Amino acid sequence: MMNKIKVGILGATGAVGQRFVQLLDNHPYFEVTSLAASDKSSGVLYGDLMNKKGFLYGKIPEYSKNIKVEECIPNIDCRLVFSALDSNVAGQIETDFVDAGYIVSTNSKNHRMDDDVPLLIPEVNPDHLSLIKNKSGYIVANPNCSTIGMVLALAPLHKKYGLTKINVVTMQALSGAGYPGVSSMDIIDNVVPYISGEEEKMQTEPIKILGDLKNGRINYAEIDINAQCNRVHVSDGHLESISFGLKNKISIEEIKQTLSEFNPLKDMNLPSSPEQPIIIRDERPQPKKNRMEGNGMSCVVGGIREDNVLGYNLVVLSHNTIRGAAGGAILNAELLYKKGLIK
Amino acid sequence: MMNKIKVGILGATGAVGQRFVQLLDNHPYFEVTSLAASDKSSGVLYGDLMNKKGFLYGKIPEYSKNIKVEECIPNIDCRLVFSALDSNVAGQIETDFVDAGYIVSTNSKNHRMDDDVPLLIPEVNPDHLSLIKNKSGYIVANPNCSTIGMVLALAPLHKKYGLTKINVVTMQALSGAGYPGVSSMDIIDNVVPYISGEEEKMQTEPIKILGDLKNGRINYAEIDINAQCNRVHVSDGHLESISFGLKNKISIEEIKQTLSEFNPLKDMNLPSSPEQPIIIRDERPQPKKNRMEGNGMSCVVGGIREDNVLGYNLVVLSHNTIRGAAGGAILNAELLYKKGLIK
Amino acid sequence: MMNKIKVGILGATGAVGQRFVQLLDNHPYFEVTSLAASDKSSGVLYGDLMNKKGFLYGKIPEYSKNIKVEECIPNIDCRLVFSALDSNVAGQIETDFVDAGYIVSTNSKNHRMDDDVPLLIPEVNPDHLSLIKNKSGYIVANPNCSTIGMVLALAPLHKKYGLTKINVVTMQALSGAGYPGVSSMDIIDNVVPYISGEEEKMQTEPIKILGDLKNGRINYAEIDINAQCNRVHVSDGHLESISFGLKNKISIEEIKQTLSEFNPLKDMNLPSSPEQPIIIRDERPQPKKNRMEGNGMSCVVGGIREDNVLGYNLVVLSHNTIRGAAGGAILNAELLYKKGLIK
Amino acid sequence: MMNKIKVGILGATGAVGQRFVQLLDNHPYFEVTSLAASDKSSGVLYGDLMNKKGFLYGKIPEYSKNIKVEECIPNIDCRLVFSALDSNVAGQIETDFVDAGYIVSTNSKNHRMDDDVPLLIPEVNPDHLSLIKNKSGYIVANPNCSTIGMVLALAPLHKKYGLTKINVVTMQALSGAGYPGVSSMDIIDNVVPYISGEEEKMQTEPIKILGDLKNGRINYAEIDINAQCNRVHVSDGHLESISFGLKNKISIEEIKQTLSEFNPLKDMNLPSSPEQPIIIRDERPQPKKNRMEGNGMSCVVGGIREDNVLGYNLVVLSHNTIRGAAGGAILNAELLYKKGLIK
Repeated sequence: MMNKIKVGILGATGAVGQRFVQLLDNHPYFEVTSLAASDKSSGVLYGDLMNKKGFLYGKIPEYSKNIKVEECIPNIDCRLVFSALDSNVAGQIETDFVDAGYIVSTNSKNHRMDDDVPLLIPEVNPDHLSLIKNKSGYIVANPNCSTIGMVLALAPLHKKYGLTKINVVTMQALSGAGYPGVSSMDIIDNVVPYISGEEEKMQTEPIKILGDLKNGRINYAEIDINAQCNRVHVSDGHLESISFGLKNKISIEEIKQTLSEFNPLKDMNLPSSPEQPIIIRDERPQPKKNRMEGNGMSCVVGGIREDNVLGYNLVVLSHNTIRGAAGGAILNAELLYKKGLIK
Repeated sequence: MMNKIKVGILGATGAVGQRFVQLLDNHPYFEVTSLAASDKSSGVLYGDLMNKKGFLYGKIPEYSKNIKVEECIPNIDCRLVFSALDSNVAGQIETDFVDAGYIVSTNSKNHRMDDDVPLLIPEVNPDHLSLIKNKSGYIVANPNCSTIGMVLALAPLHKKYGLTKINVVTMQALSGAGYPGVSSMDIIDNVVPYISGEEEKMQTEPIKILGDLKNGRINYAEIDINAQCNRVHVSDGHLESISFGLKNKISIEEIKQTLSEFNPLKDMNLPSSPEQPIIIRDERPQPKKNRMEGNGMSCVVGGIREDNVLGYNLVVLSHNTIRGAAGGAILNAELLYKKGLIK
Repeated sequence: MMNKIKVGILGATGAVGQRFVQLLDNHPYFEVTSLAASDKSSGVLYGDLMNKKGFLYGKIPEYSKNIKVEECIPNIDCRLVFSALDSNVAGQIETDFVDAGYIVSTNSKNHRMDDDVPLLIPEVNPDHLSLIKNKSGYIVANPNCSTIGMVLALAPLHKKYGLTKINVVTMQALSGAGYPGVSSMDIIDNVVPYISGEEEKMQTEPIKILGDLKNGRINYAEIDINAQCNRVHVSDGHLESISFGLKNKISIEEIKQTLSEFNPLKDMNLPSSPEQPIIIRDERPQPKKNRMEGNGMSCVVGGIREDNVLGYNLVVLSHNTIRGAAGGAILNAELLYKKGLIK
Repeated sequence: MMNKIKVGILGATGAVGQRFVQLLDNHPYFEVTSLAASDKSSGVLYGDLMNKKGFLYGKIPEYSKNIKVEECIPNIDCRLVFSALDSNVAGQIETDFVDAGYIVSTNSKNHRMDDDVPLLIPEVNPDHLSLIKNKSGYIVANPNCSTIGMVLALAPLHKKYGLTKINVVTMQALSGAGYPGVSSMDIIDNVVPYISGEEEKMQTEPIKILGDLKNGRINYAEIDINAQCNRVHVSDGHLESISFGLKNKISIEEIKQTLSEFNPLKDMNLPSSPEQPIIIRDERPQPKKNRMEGNGMSCVVGGIREDNVLGYNLVVLSHNTIRGAAGGAILNAELLYKKGLIK
């Protein structure tokens, strides 16, 4: 019986924090020893708090019920913290934890573009872990929930053929805005064609993730990206209509084969790693039908076809609060564990 | 008191047919004298039929209640027919009406690409009416409901600066599929990322509409178009995220000014013509908020901005069963009337 | 040209406050001279504030744009205030306005059950205006949005035949919770079977409204009421499945006739009074189809039938933010005006 | 290794039929050997048919893919058939199967009220199995999807205290109407306050189920029931607001205890039987949160409180296509199996 790593969750009472609590139930590597949130929750048992607020994902895991909620200050008893903090406060708090020698696996946007922070998709850029200089305290970040499906789906093509341009229009789920998030009055019989900050993230994060390491730094990939983001009447699962260009013309069959064969983590047996990171279908994926494939950790790609503007079209779906948030950050930490980066 | 033109409606009992019945109530040029539908409805009073089926748009107009539904054969008493026929049958029936000397203003897709049929947006290509060779019996068609908003919004730019490429992703309303149309089971908590035939229409119709007349024929416009069509959980109003390129770089301000000033029908006072065909806003339009602008006959454009892939982005919204179907066909007929083409 | 009465709106920036602003546009009796809200909005032009927040009901009325928002303290320039205040603050503020000699037509719940406050539905209990003792400053209240449709529909039967018991289950619209109100995450693919305080209001307000005046006080009606309240995925329009008993058995035809003939305000020509306060149909009403009947001021009743438990069933629909809130309070004020109670 | 009973599914391609196919995957008692449907599907492999139509519940079970669809005539190779037939045809076909010596466990309404057909909820009226006279060929029926939750929740109270009256208002899910069922145009931003035939079923089926056996026949229970049925914008899970009277007044605590302790099948270990048939909560159940409790086979009851009209209120939720349809019929067959009635 191996010793599990003690982990904490920062922002444990919000929508993403609750996902962490749920997904870390019975985790083979990690044991949740601390749940931290804003000071007004501090001192209350997590179970009592969630009974009152309502836990968003079915039953409150037993392990969490009797943990007393702490403040988000770096004196909590654990080695690694998962951060689901609001971006208003995440920047400073995460820095404080790093300075105090904690490892931080964050879903927050604040440090994603920092030079020494790997913006990590384990299947795509595990080599970026070498950005970590100080092994005692550091941050790894997962990308934005709308970035991750697109980059996971396109990365194998970029590695093999070279992406030149991407045009993406998203139809994003309500859970991406947290809870309570979007007012029901705004989305009933409607689409909200704007999500603050989202388009910028989709235009900058991918070129870091797909960038090359040179002398310990990342050379951003030279891909022109245009993103238009919409909020639609869907609970979970971001759907994206994507057009893209490649340096050379290849066949649709080559694209399908490249994506189907892509499974670089296969032999690592990470607990949150799906059997197939990219699932290829002929038909286009739909949020309700496909979001839970690979336990919410796969991206599903369909409708791959030629396009006479940029070159190719495809439709990608990925679960925004699992692969796109808590699940992604947990997979990142699992990779750290297997690579011996949690000491 | 002028004599009104007698008109009929083919397919008067379906979703678009009912819109014709509604919008032609008290029309200053046209008097509905015939309502025709498939033979199983034939012989019944329209009011009785709609009381039983349920009229989709509020009250059944008084004028229509006592009209006996006829079969769609060219012996009905009128000069012009509005066609809301299903495409399974529209092709032959419309040809039969033309051969019998009727004018057909159709919303059906069957004859849209015919050489002698103007695919008409009155503000955009009224000169295409010269395609009509035989003034006694002929067809004019309005474009597909997803084509029309996009082309109306981009035509002024094409005329002035020349479009090169368009990438469009649609989020289309449920009413576009007719009634009963999309099953509630398919769209609740979901997006359906595919609409049969829609992408082809959006890639071919615009280049006809924006084509130039040469020697009595249309030279299709040389614009590369890529369309990806989605059905979303909205009752009415098609929203489109559009990227496009122009032959020369111009400023966002020039785009806004060109679109705002575009109002070529202004002095014709056509009854269904909106005060402003293209309404420009800073914020991006939303289906619920903006679909009824200009009584459903305006397209609303927002979010005009630069894009580093094709050049520019904008978001357009137009009402799919008014401007995009019955209202569009009525405006077409009004133009015919004013131009003296209904004799 | 008569002089209009100067009126103010307390809580003018919330969902109900905005409805007041909309419905009072060009009102024949009232001129809005003051818009008041919480102190953080104070000093800003209403138009600027609404441009930023988004006005919920289409275009911001011109008249309101240049009114500077004031604090809710009784030194504003008007004779009557419409109150859309949150119940957290309405109690004291409304009392302050009364003490300062203003007339208050309120939609808030705080004073509804006060002995000297008429809980008014103009068609039902105009005689309750005699509860007002001090004509210079006083409150009239409209009932809760879910109470009003039920009571308006049943009052004619109570007056003629005597109600004994009522069992009501509501399916209430999202706008009843204000804005932002219900989280989209809570209501997508769901019903929320509980609305705080609503059942109590539906069990107490009707027996005051239907009570008899005796010696300047109200004898509450002796009707047993049981209410179960649900929030459903509808934007506007409260639907209620009602069972009720009467003192004597009458026919369904008598019920229909009694309700159809009920129109006591007919000759008063109040501007907000619908042509027909209770619209009777054979088919049961639906929120989307029927909420705007009588400009949102009628209640629509259908499905009247016998029931072997309490006696009779019917389904009633009324618009919760028009008849059930701002429109109801305006109709109340119009009655005050016609009765000479605004001096 | 025991021999499994061969079973067939009639109407295997519809919404309920697909649920049978899904829920019978790896069933410990039953092996699906025949899938039958209307003659137009006949001869095609089930897997091919479902790939084309779309299987409603995730992946098509492997076992079913290579079964060739047969016609619904009583020459198929099995001992028992589960019937998900449309009521247009179920009556005669089920009779034909019985006459040919098959056992029929049906979800269709046609034979529910027949004298020799147990209308079965295994926890409630297993003694009604004695209605079966001819053990070689017979029908057992499960109740309507809206009946079953109500009766399961109230039966323990009826047995102990005697029900006198029930008033129920349902908010029923879309899947109850089958597929494609309700048009999205009818339910978006709406409630449909009517479901054909549903109120009659809810008023008659319970008094059979709760009736007493006397001399081989059922004496219907003497309970007055009034039902009002509504369709709401929910995918799965029928929610019901219920009022009821009991012969004697008891405390809320006694009700909770009676319902919590009710678990008569506990020792039988039927595969589809939930751990707890009635789950009691303080808070009222919600479709999205609670429909899958007990794998969709439990009913969840909350909001038990006193009511001054009939006596008591409660809110019940049950999954309409699992407990309320296919799952209910399978549980019925499991009871038959355990009782030795499948020979």
